[in-house]
Amino acid sequence: MIDFNFVSPTKVFFGKGKEKQIGEICKEFSFKKVLVVIGKSSVKKSGLFDLVINVLKNSGIEYVLLEGVRANPEISLCRKGIALARENNVDSLLAIGGGSVIDTAKNIAVGYYYDGDSFDFNLHKSSPTKALPIGVILTISAAGSELSNSCVIQDDELKRKSGFNSDLVRPVFAVENPELTYSVDKYQTGVGTVDIMMHTLERYFQDSSDNELADGFAEGLLRTVVKAGYDVIKNPEDYEARATLMLASSYSHNGITSIGKRFGMPVHQLEHALSGVYPNVSHGAGLAVLYPAWAKYYLVYDSKKFATLGRRVFNIVGDDDQLVGKQFIEELEKFFSYLGVPKTYKDLGIDNVDIGLLTDVFSNNRTREVYHREKPMNYEVAEEIFKMVKEG
Amino acid sequence: MIDFNFVSPTKVFFGKGKEKQIGEICKEFSFKKVLVVIGKSSVKKSGLFDLVINVLKNSGIEYVLLEGVRANPEISLCRKGIALARENNVDSLLAIGGGSVIDTAKNIAVGYYYDGDSFDFNLHKSSPTKALPIGVILTISAAGSELSNSCVIQDDELKRKSGFNSDLVRPVFAVENPELTYSVDKYQTGVGTVDIMMHTLERYFQDSSDNELADGFAEGLLRTVVKAGYDVIKNPEDYEARATLMLASSYSHNGITSIGKRFGMPVHQLEHALSGVYPNVSHGAGLAVLYPAWAKYYLVYDSKKFATLGRRVFNIVGDDDQLVGKQFIEELEKFFSYLGVPKTYKDLGIDNVDIGLLTDVFSNNRTREVYHREKPMNYEVAEEIFKMVKEG
Repeated sequence: MIDFNFVSPTKVFFGKGKEKQIGEICKEFSFKKVLVVIGKSSVKKSGLFDLVINVLKNSGIEYVLLEGVRANPEISLCRKGIALARENNVDSLLAIGGGSVIDTAKNIAVGYYYDGDSFDFNLHKSSPTKALPIGVILTISAAGSELSNSCVIQDDELKRKSGFNSDLVRPVFAVENPELTYSVDKYQTGVGTVDIMMHTLERYFQDSSDNELADGFAEGLLRTVVKAGYDVIKNPEDYEARATLMLASSYSHNGITSIGKRFGMPVHQLEHALSGVYPNVSHGAGLAVLYPAWAKYYLVYDSKKFATLGRRVFNIVGDDDQLVGKQFIEELEKFFSYLGVPKTYKDLGIDNVDIGLLTDVFSNNRTREVYHREKPMNYEVAEEIFKMVKEG
Repeated sequence: MIDFNFVSPTKVFFGKGKEKQIGEICKEFSFKKVLVVIGKSSVKKSGLFDLVINVLKNSGIEYVLLEGVRANPEISLCRKGIALARENNVDSLLAIGGGSVIDTAKNIAVGYYYDGDSFDFNLHKSSPTKALPIGVILTISAAGSELSNSCVIQDDELKRKSGFNSDLVRPVFAVENPELTYSVDKYQTGVGTVDIMMHTLERYFQDSSDNELADGFAEGLLRTVVKAGYDVIKNPEDYEARATLMLASSYSHNGITSIGKRFGMPVHQLEHALSGVYPNVSHGAGLAVLYPAWAKYYLVYDSKKFATLGRRVFNIVGDDDQLVGKQFIEELEKFFSYLGVPKTYKDLGIDNVDIGLLTDVFSNNRTREVYHREKPMNYEVAEEIFKMVKEG
């Protein structure tokens, strides 16, 4: 176990109708004037936006609105949000949505107190020192940004998608009503479920000892998510399945499934290159396509861990780690097929994939590699993995 | 899944030598004048106390000392601590020790702001509304009080041991250096390990659905603790095992292993009666003696869950839930024997156990029962379980 500091202070308000308590919740956290951040239209269509705004008004909480966050959220809207927050002297942010909306709020929260450009944080040119407090009303189970310390933003001009981690951007509260996700369609539910799994799957393959509490949490979470995933595709209004996915979304990415372990997310790094170059690729979809290729490449280096997952997540029986590990990847692909998520570049809407460009972006022109204790993922390994994904 | 609010804000500083950072950690949490709470002698003998006090002095942090906390901590020392804290206008508490020391600090933290007697909270006559912030330097892996919202105190006059739960008493930080537990002897390591398991085992048997994330976390934690328990008895300086037990201690009782589930701790209720009547019984030892009896009684009502634990914690193979459940209890008893923890009343130092008195104290003179969805634990059930424990 490595030495570490860990804190996950977000208070979770979970259950049916909890969004109606948003006024008292804001008061509990001394939110008096909030910048409300939302996406393009879904929370307005669903009525959630009106409900929340009415509760805020009735509770005497002032607000300013920033709308239009897209998937793979762009830095220009964050800049606009920072200006709006400063003009109106807000004291807090309320993100109503999923990962993109929350990450936009996170960038604004730290950019608010920063003299330079807030993409500097994402480019690791600067570290945040202060942030506005962020509250969340979650509408999709996927990114886990509602409890995480991570903030991933896209810069269209630079064709660069990049993240930073800081405990300052962990939301102070997250309101989670699983019923709000009943209307999430099959496709988004599928890629969201993949995203949830990835946050724990990626952590799982980082170094660990034989005595690893984090791995126990990880295996339990993955087994539960697979079951909930099968259930929710059968019945999108299965409350227990939706609730499990929502809670798993939060705890798959708050750090508990890698507590005491080295942190790293190699497939996320590949995916950031992919959706950086092809911005129409959604994060979960990109991960669904890339993970099996990554796993097949690394199976030989990590057969014991793949096999343990096979036994504990899918109840595969057998002593041969390479074989059980291979079967784990097959079971995972079967599950992904059931979820109906993309498998190929074509499924992602990419017709003539530019492997060279992806590799260059991933490796920052061959200067960067991603840690693995036996086989670091340099540009050659990444190139091979990008090639292993089927064209169509 | 039930509706719930959950927060576990404690920042964990984990690893070798972390106690040397106590000055900067106190500053991070704005501790300027602390009431240091310790036990009878071990932290003075080990040198930890002197080290911490020196760091505090060098960091310009003032302190007042309350010493002499015993196992099954008594309310009179809490009262003394409250008076001391008020006289000296401290702004915070620093508990150096294990569960008893931390629980004493918790009672003082809420008693400080309360006009009545602070045992009122433990008797549920009053609810805390404000608390001094508490920091912890942990010296034994057992009670989990370093992250929990629970505070259990003994009143010798009333022969009553009772707890309250409040998020106000969750420590703001916990410093955890596994090396500090190398010197914990085999007996204390054994009963501590039982205590760790109990916090999750008890939660596990509360109602859950088929889609239960908490149960996945619980199974992972229990499997890991069993392995670490076997390892640490073999080698008390096995860092990975000590680290696993320390981290598991914290996350077994912070609530994550029952998140989204009804909360309850039936065997703890039996044990509070036992060590209330026989104050020399330590908490973990009492649990070790009572749990197998409780499990044998409830096996018929909860065979599916016992069997699932058997399969996932001890890798028991078989389809017959009653049988696999029975084997789970046998494996658990085998593990407890290996740990060398007490099995009988005689092992606990009780010669002529007074079953009638235990039953009356547990059931508050037959007026109280503890929830179970099929078979509530009333005084008759409790009496039967107390009788199932061997005399010697």
